[in-house]
Amino acid sequence: MTHQQILHLKTLGRGTYNISHELDRVIAESGIQRGLCHVFVQHTSASLIICENADPTVRHDLEHFLNRLVPDGDPLFEHTLEGPDDMPAHVRSILTKMDLTLPVVDGRCGLGTWQGVYLYEHRTHPQQRNVVITLRD
Amino acid sequence: MTHQQILHLKTLGRGTYNISHELDRVIAESGIQRGLCHVFVQHTSASLIICENADPTVRHDLEHFLNRLVPDGDPLFEHTLEGPDDMPAHVRSILTKMDLTLPVVDGRCGLGTWQGVYLYEHRTHPQQRNVVITLRD
Amino acid sequence: MTHQQILHLKTLGRGTYNISHELDRVIAESGIQRGLCHVFVQHTSASLIICENADPTVRHDLEHFLNRLVPDGDPLFEHTLEGPDDMPAHVRSILTKMDLTLPVVDGRCGLGTWQGVYLYEHRTHPQQRNVVITLRD
Repeated sequence: MTHQQILHLKTLGRGTYNISHELDRVIAESGIQRGLCHVFVQHTSASLIICENADPTVRHDLEHFLNRLVPDGDPLFEHTLEGPDDMPAHVRSILTKMDLTLPVVDGRCGLGTWQGVYLYEHRTHPQQRNVVITLRD
Repeated sequence: MTHQQILHLKTLGRGTYNISHELDRVIAESGIQRGLCHVFVQHTSASLIICENADPTVRHDLEHFLNRLVPDGDPLFEHTLEGPDDMPAHVRSILTKMDLTLPVVDGRCGLGTWQGVYLYEHRTHPQQRNVVITLRD
Repeated sequence: MTHQQILHLKTLGRGTYNISHELDRVIAESGIQRGLCHVFVQHTSASLIICENADPTVRHDLEHFLNRLVPDGDPLFEHTLEGPDDMPAHVRSILTKMDLTLPVVDGRCGLGTWQGVYLYEHRTHPQQRNVVITLRD
């Protein structure tokens, strides 16, 4: 059985958004107990990460790290059509990836205790993002 | 139903090669309408990325970024058997990954409007690359 | 048919641990000949990589690269509760990812000749790690 659903998420600009509960809800609706949960962002300037879910400082530190690694307005970049965060958002998305596959265990995401699934918005302004969830038992 | 096929691709050296249409062709041949499309590069110096597909400058900027992040001939590296691009190609492949899973939606890759799937060749010389495609409905 | 199994692995601290044979063993036990093998680390400071499997220098060079890219004790990081390797372990895990999907070909991992699958421990001290394997034909 394949179950597929598209989430339409609004972001408030750059940052991480916990979608673990959304995924568990979709899995529950599907009735699937054991299998795979595939998550896919249909954009090139947002991505999906698994991150420590207890201390928000971890996600702040991650943001600071990516900001240093791929600085907005870096003169290296020629593709600046949509502003100084345009090309960095593409690079950040490629480094953190747009696809993610999770195990489904006992009707839920088989995450570890300290793992959360986050949509990572890399543009500085709010965006509408589509996330395709495909479940297989 | 599982459908599996190996693509044999020739690259012309370092750079990105759009394989989105190849994937859609394999999906069409399989007859699968909804499910997952798994793509896998059987090498350690080439990878798979999803990238903006409209402005080629994006992929040039990405290449410049990776070149700065993992410079050819970096004295940090001891594994230089096959030349100054050998070890950087391994690191670049690990950072951008060799496996990619896409949703199949309505008999096609469920990509967003601006997403393309690219084989990323990281060696400077032309290579023969095997890409295993596995489809599940 | 879905086959799911959890491996409990002990690491000896930071470094790479080849789990390719473990994966082939689980695939053999499942009897699956063709399909997908999904591997998932239930932690946020360990990850999964595919790396060249012949010359150990490749993995040493990779470690040196990550060490330079995400230095232990970097003053950028505020989340230092568990020591100077705590936050770098999170960043390294996110950059190298906790999920990995491989094709199953002829009852084995469909790896290329020079590919090995490694659990990458990013903490300096030994840890107990759970890896969930989900197989689908």
